[in-house]
Amino acid sequence: MMSELGLTYVRIAEFAWSRIEPRDGEFQFEWLDNAVETLANAGLSVVMCTPTATPPKWLVDKFPEILPVDPDTGRTRGFGSRRHYDFSSDVYFDEAMRITELMAKRYGKHDAIVGWQTDNEICCHNTNLSASDVARSAFQQWCSLRYASIDALNDAWGNVFWSMEYQNFSAIELPVGAVTETNPAHRLAYRRFSSEKVCHFNDSMTKLIRAYAPGKFVTHNFMPMTYTGVDNYSLAAPLDFSSHDSYPLGRVDQQLKNSSAEELRKYMRTGHPDASAYSHDQTRGFSKDPFWVMEQQPGPVNWADNNARPAPGMIRLWTLEAFAHGAGCVSYFRWRQALFGQEQMHAGLLRQDNSKSAAWPEVEEAIADVAKLSLLDETKQQADVAMITAAESVWVSAIERQSESYEFANIEFDYYHALRSLGVSVDFVNPDSDLSGYKLVIAPGLPIIGDALIKKFKASDASFIFGPRSGAKTSEFSFPGNLPPGELQQIAPLRVLSIETLRPDCIEGLCWNGKRYESLIWREELEVIDGDVLAQYDDGLPAVVRCGSLSYIGTLTDTLFLKDFFRMNCQELGIETNEFGIDLRIIRRGNLMFAFNYSEQKQDLPLDKGAQILLGSRSIKPHDVTVWKRN
Amino acid sequence: MMSELGLTYVRIAEFAWSRIEPRDGEFQFEWLDNAVETLANAGLSVVMCTPTATPPKWLVDKFPEILPVDPDTGRTRGFGSRRHYDFSSDVYFDEAMRITELMAKRYGKHDAIVGWQTDNEICCHNTNLSASDVARSAFQQWCSLRYASIDALNDAWGNVFWSMEYQNFSAIELPVGAVTETNPAHRLAYRRFSSEKVCHFNDSMTKLIRAYAPGKFVTHNFMPMTYTGVDNYSLAAPLDFSSHDSYPLGRVDQQLKNSSAEELRKYMRTGHPDASAYSHDQTRGFSKDPFWVMEQQPGPVNWADNNARPAPGMIRLWTLEAFAHGAGCVSYFRWRQALFGQEQMHAGLLRQDNSKSAAWPEVEEAIADVAKLSLLDETKQQADVAMITAAESVWVSAIERQSESYEFANIEFDYYHALRSLGVSVDFVNPDSDLSGYKLVIAPGLPIIGDALIKKFKASDASFIFGPRSGAKTSEFSFPGNLPPGELQQIAPLRVLSIETLRPDCIEGLCWNGKRYESLIWREELEVIDGDVLAQYDDGLPAVVRCGSLSYIGTLTDTLFLKDFFRMNCQELGIETNEFGIDLRIIRRGNLMFAFNYSEQKQDLPLDKGAQILLGSRSIKPHDVTVWKRN
Amino acid sequence: MMSELGLTYVRIAEFAWSRIEPRDGEFQFEWLDNAVETLANAGLSVVMCTPTATPPKWLVDKFPEILPVDPDTGRTRGFGSRRHYDFSSDVYFDEAMRITELMAKRYGKHDAIVGWQTDNEICCHNTNLSASDVARSAFQQWCSLRYASIDALNDAWGNVFWSMEYQNFSAIELPVGAVTETNPAHRLAYRRFSSEKVCHFNDSMTKLIRAYAPGKFVTHNFMPMTYTGVDNYSLAAPLDFSSHDSYPLGRVDQQLKNSSAEELRKYMRTGHPDASAYSHDQTRGFSKDPFWVMEQQPGPVNWADNNARPAPGMIRLWTLEAFAHGAGCVSYFRWRQALFGQEQMHAGLLRQDNSKSAAWPEVEEAIADVAKLSLLDETKQQADVAMITAAESVWVSAIERQSESYEFANIEFDYYHALRSLGVSVDFVNPDSDLSGYKLVIAPGLPIIGDALIKKFKASDASFIFGPRSGAKTSEFSFPGNLPPGELQQIAPLRVLSIETLRPDCIEGLCWNGKRYESLIWREELEVIDGDVLAQYDDGLPAVVRCGSLSYIGTLTDTLFLKDFFRMNCQELGIETNEFGIDLRIIRRGNLMFAFNYSEQKQDLPLDKGAQILLGSRSIKPHDVTVWKRN
Repeated sequence: MMSELGLTYVRIAEFAWSRIEPRDGEFQFEWLDNAVETLANAGLSVVMCTPTATPPKWLVDKFPEILPVDPDTGRTRGFGSRRHYDFSSDVYFDEAMRITELMAKRYGKHDAIVGWQTDNEICCHNTNLSASDVARSAFQQWCSLRYASIDALNDAWGNVFWSMEYQNFSAIELPVGAVTETNPAHRLAYRRFSSEKVCHFNDSMTKLIRAYAPGKFVTHNFMPMTYTGVDNYSLAAPLDFSSHDSYPLGRVDQQLKNSSAEELRKYMRTGHPDASAYSHDQTRGFSKDPFWVMEQQPGPVNWADNNARPAPGMIRLWTLEAFAHGAGCVSYFRWRQALFGQEQMHAGLLRQDNSKSAAWPEVEEAIADVAKLSLLDETKQQADVAMITAAESVWVSAIERQSESYEFANIEFDYYHALRSLGVSVDFVNPDSDLSGYKLVIAPGLPIIGDALIKKFKASDASFIFGPRSGAKTSEFSFPGNLPPGELQQIAPLRVLSIETLRPDCIEGLCWNGKRYESLIWREELEVIDGDVLAQYDDGLPAVVRCGSLSYIGTLTDTLFLKDFFRMNCQELGIETNEFGIDLRIIRRGNLMFAFNYSEQKQDLPLDKGAQILLGSRSIKPHDVTVWKRN
Repeated sequence: MMSELGLTYVRIAEFAWSRIEPRDGEFQFEWLDNAVETLANAGLSVVMCTPTATPPKWLVDKFPEILPVDPDTGRTRGFGSRRHYDFSSDVYFDEAMRITELMAKRYGKHDAIVGWQTDNEICCHNTNLSASDVARSAFQQWCSLRYASIDALNDAWGNVFWSMEYQNFSAIELPVGAVTETNPAHRLAYRRFSSEKVCHFNDSMTKLIRAYAPGKFVTHNFMPMTYTGVDNYSLAAPLDFSSHDSYPLGRVDQQLKNSSAEELRKYMRTGHPDASAYSHDQTRGFSKDPFWVMEQQPGPVNWADNNARPAPGMIRLWTLEAFAHGAGCVSYFRWRQALFGQEQMHAGLLRQDNSKSAAWPEVEEAIADVAKLSLLDETKQQADVAMITAAESVWVSAIERQSESYEFANIEFDYYHALRSLGVSVDFVNPDSDLSGYKLVIAPGLPIIGDALIKKFKASDASFIFGPRSGAKTSEFSFPGNLPPGELQQIAPLRVLSIETLRPDCIEGLCWNGKRYESLIWREELEVIDGDVLAQYDDGLPAVVRCGSLSYIGTLTDTLFLKDFFRMNCQELGIETNEFGIDLRIIRRGNLMFAFNYSEQKQDLPLDKGAQILLGSRSIKPHDVTVWKRN
Repeated sequence: MMSELGLTYVRIAEFAWSRIEPRDGEFQFEWLDNAVETLANAGLSVVMCTPTATPPKWLVDKFPEILPVDPDTGRTRGFGSRRHYDFSSDVYFDEAMRITELMAKRYGKHDAIVGWQTDNEICCHNTNLSASDVARSAFQQWCSLRYASIDALNDAWGNVFWSMEYQNFSAIELPVGAVTETNPAHRLAYRRFSSEKVCHFNDSMTKLIRAYAPGKFVTHNFMPMTYTGVDNYSLAAPLDFSSHDSYPLGRVDQQLKNSSAEELRKYMRTGHPDASAYSHDQTRGFSKDPFWVMEQQPGPVNWADNNARPAPGMIRLWTLEAFAHGAGCVSYFRWRQALFGQEQMHAGLLRQDNSKSAAWPEVEEAIADVAKLSLLDETKQQADVAMITAAESVWVSAIERQSESYEFANIEFDYYHALRSLGVSVDFVNPDSDLSGYKLVIAPGLPIIGDALIKKFKASDASFIFGPRSGAKTSEFSFPGNLPPGELQQIAPLRVLSIETLRPDCIEGLCWNGKRYESLIWREELEVIDGDVLAQYDDGLPAVVRCGSLSYIGTLTDTLFLKDFFRMNCQELGIETNEFGIDLRIIRRGNLMFAFNYSEQKQDLPLDKGAQILLGSRSIKPHDVTVWKRN
């Protein structure tokens, strides 16, 4: 049936440890061999997974010390679901590598197996962080390597504050369970350590697979950094390409949790028009090659607070949208809805009775569309606009609240949303990335900006837009001695004299171009040493400043300001915008231009008369797609 | 004073262990003997309780292993309040039976003691569930008895999912403390096990009492299943009759927690017009004989978030309403308001200074009313309408959320409320009950429907109305292989193709009889194989279907739809309805008809001119009662 | 720079243990010696602190048993922030006294050191309560001292309820971790014990300092009793005077958490007009001498949910307001904003780069104002109105909820706010205080009223106003046998027949003087034995009663009622009121009258033509201050 539908790839075995090794050292590979053969015989290519996200019960009973400990409660997180292992456990590391090596040996060179996925959604359920004894020891060791001497560590973290000084590395605690908040520098170190442990796990597994599976790709299905606390850029480094799992409706429910019914209703069966694209563009940024969607939602899922049905057409729309944003493959999760277990309410392409679900004909059509457009032959080109993101930005703002409402993920998404509603293409980069070729580089919030990055900025021809909190922290989470934006003052001669945060409903004004926008939540008092004041607070003090090619926005704003401000910048820099209609999203891949209609209205695309439409029509129906050839 | 007031029964000793056995093996029965004699001499009948809800401190210190462990936190639940024992503890079981036997021996044949209450509000405070080591062992044993082989258990639960397979029974964990959600089948087994443990405790105690107290009744004061997690039908099996504790104001505060002040204000001093009756009818359903109200709220209590004073007249109204719904006795809790302890703000018939509280004259009047009407001579007849309920329905929907707002208890209450506001009498039955004599059987949500029940439905002459989620699970919490409503397809040839859940404020339409109602929260996509589509969703797809004598409602709806739909069904089936006015409730007992006015307005009852009014008048005052003879 | 600014006092060393004793028994005092000398040489006076709020890591590692245990979670509260010690730990007590003695010996007689602060914000972060084993043992010992026999304890607490009786003192548990709520008497004892432990710690430290530092003052920077659970009156007893830490914006964010944006916006950059004054007056009440503000917020802080910038002028206004309410010193926290640690976002008088923050010129101006007015030469006189407060009032209402919305702190503040918006001066007293000289004594809520207090009331010439819940508990948290207001019935012959609590939005009427006010949340049914009914509920029953010179308010009310009622009482008693305008606050110190304009409007002060204005002007600008000489 998979062949009948036109599928190419099948991912398998991601949680299969208890079937591969039902008892310590006792293996049953026959069923998996058969599965691979069956798929191969049907002409399908297999993506094999390591089953390390679910160590079986006998292994947990043999080595109970592999279980992670919840940092918030101090309680061991036990067996009974998934991801019950501690990244700091050497014992589990060895076990994970053992099963990986066995599988890689057996299947590494099998022709039908074209690639591998390591583990699964690594660090989902906050498993990046553990407060176990092994995690504490490993953290102490990590600290001793990073800081060399305990005095250097005390100095770097500012432990003199509140007499938090340590006398030796073995006295170091994890930043958990204290009477009140722990040192932010301590917490940042814990985040870095935890992320590195995860990357080490994935790196080692990747190396092991490569040793036995030459020529096969290795990927991983990433979760957003904001969920997993892992630096996805580092995690992606050893992989051939990145993948992610796309659940537009599961996430919209969380994203619009505090929205009115009216607002939610618009998107509850489509997802927010920029949500999938945001994940696609983010994932594309982690590694250079085309990314994969390893799991595409094909119907209602089970894990959101509420689980709506996708509007008719959305499965196809999401599929084509992924390709338009540079996907190399879109794989649906799951094939058949399960009869049992935690995900029995998670839709598949087939229902539990093997009947075809509503997604089936849409997938069929999408496959035909991709073929018709020769979509995979089109190369996704570099965008004009880059957004700089960083795991450390997530960590810093999670650690230092200062405002109950400064949520890095929301802020970055809001900047992205403003750009995408202008029809601007966006690449995500991180501080280590090459910036050449970009006309405009935007940092919604980049608190830690080191010397190397400053040099890169200076060397670049791009224009820059920085949001508030940029350069606001040193690499060890202290305050810059020259005040924020710290090192960025080398480029933008201004100083942040004070910062206030307001409850989100206490909105104040932001005056730009004779129009009043909104300043909210995070508001910096700026001293401009050399630069032009573009926008002002209600009291006339500077809020947005331009210093040469760099604009600094000292406050969070409404989306309208971002749109108008970005539009002006794009116009000045000759960056293409495409504002085609309400909830219409325009994106380019190679020589193809795509329009996706997220609204419930039919809309007319303002295309040239001679536009060569390859798919759909000028008059685009709700939840439909139109593709035309770029002139 | 109790005699003066006209009371008949006095319940005593329910928490008296530390006074009966102040030290290990040292007994002081004299005070209790005296109390019994005093009551007997005043012509009062005594209901004696086992004091097992409060093991004394010396017992806890001797056997600390009897303490339960909170499944959510993993913390031991210690001494200092009540119910600090684990139903899986054999040690505590033995101690509870020891004190029970001692009391039964001493008092079993005392003439003044007419009956017994086992324990008190068993499993209140979620004590049905414990995560202790003894609970884990007992669960393993229970599993081995139920499933015989570990392969059968793995198969039944679908443990292959996420490699959750167990290698032997002694490896089984309780479904607590895992990294993310545990297997629903595992959780259902834990609920079943826990409920059976509680029933075993109660069964054994009941047997012991009967051995020493021949001819005396044994009852228990039940909590709602939704609070205690016990299958009250099973718990009631060995008892002579069921009792419950009626706190209309304590519950209204919780029930209307999210309502506006305007909505709450209507009922804050009366309780919801259907709340008490719902508990009465539920309790009557647990066993055949007249139920008792073992505790009737006589004034403000102490345990709700807010504790209003009953409106004048309500103590009498609640009392008569209980009898009208089939009570054999209404006992007030408490006699005198306590001077100390956790419940010193809980009203009694007497104040702490022995003065008569506002409830006194109302109770006096109610006692006279009951006598005047010879109420206890009237037999409560079987209703025309039965609602099928089941502990498993509570458990399934608590375990599998799928929607943040699908609350089984609210849904069942809403169905009941619609029927009662039509003035229809309702019996509650469970899947094991005899359905003969019912004209209409309604299941608001009955996810597990076995073969035996299907046979019963087929054999019945009744019409049926099933709400969404019916037949949606197998007995082991897997998805039916033929899709929901599973086995019910034998009667209703339709299939649920998909299910979506929406945030409760995102309401959609339901079109029936040319009128637009509301479809909300839970919405099933139905494929009708053979049947008539009665109501449709906004997109024209079937929402309510009739297959022969069975109507299937594939969505949650507004109450208005339920009322209109039930009214139509009642009319078709010749079931009496009594819609007499706003917040007026009409109910029958024997040859008496009762009207209770929950509103704040005087209303005229639309009685026949010749109606023989026995109590009150045709023009019924707020919070008053009218009784007339049925023609 | 401190001298340049005109500062007089500098507080140091409050968290410096790890620098003074970096390793067990290894001391480094040189840096502190130098600091003291430097300050002395600049003409500054030093307030030295004991560093006991932050035991260093080596001490925690040597004596892990000093760590407190969280009563809510049972989890040990570890190292990594501050206040990680258990007041019941004898080991820590000895360590704290050891370091105190060492410091007192070294610095006790140093001329530049004029006084001492013990510890820091004692019991902040709820460290008054610990559920450790040492706390349990200490509590058992405390109980044996207080109650002498276990029977007396069981009797006092009413442990017969729910079989909670103890057989001996060593069996006593802390009132934590039980299945449901523990005995309120048990909890009150735990609060008393905990508070006494804290006072013992502070008393001992104070004695030790005095032994080595004759002639130097000892103070402590108090937190509100509602935050710390300590009886501040007892804590203050051994001190020379009391201090407190004033954070008007940090607290306004919490205080108006549930208010609309409109309400919050009015005060988000000024604080509530009565919030600072409330703390000043409270602190002044703890001991007789002029109090200090040990920490005055000089800009945005870091610890509130949102952290606004003070409106221009507010630093000066708050400073002068503190003096007007009787301060002897206002000290700003902190001098320079920190570069690292948990408080790096907490503003100082200097920024991190040593530049002067916005507060600097305001402080400069305030110092000049104080000098100009010779403010410290003016003696704060006793007010006409006293409010009786008590730690036990906080504890009782925290322990016995009865209403989700009866918050003692809010109620007391509301009474105070009503008085202050009338321009009435208020002293806070506690039950042990001398009442002579007061014309009006107000108790917003004083549940425990003993015999001694009754005698004091009887002997007083003052009039009294009591709020609901007065006299509602015996000293052991039982219900008064003669009903509330218990012993107060000796003065006010009335009885509380019943109490109801309503959700705060279900407001009912209160009729007084022909006007309808609001009765809400807590509503008592009063039986008036001898007295005049002043105000009535909607049903005509008495709500406010006057018995001779005592008025009893049987319900919580709106602020408008309090204002009107207090105004009438003031007029009757010849108490001066000063209602000068919106959000204008008038207060007297000695012969000076102060007006503080918390509003955003310029307002005209209704002063006599001949008024001698010493500071500011008759037309008072927003956030400005006017001072005139009293006639």
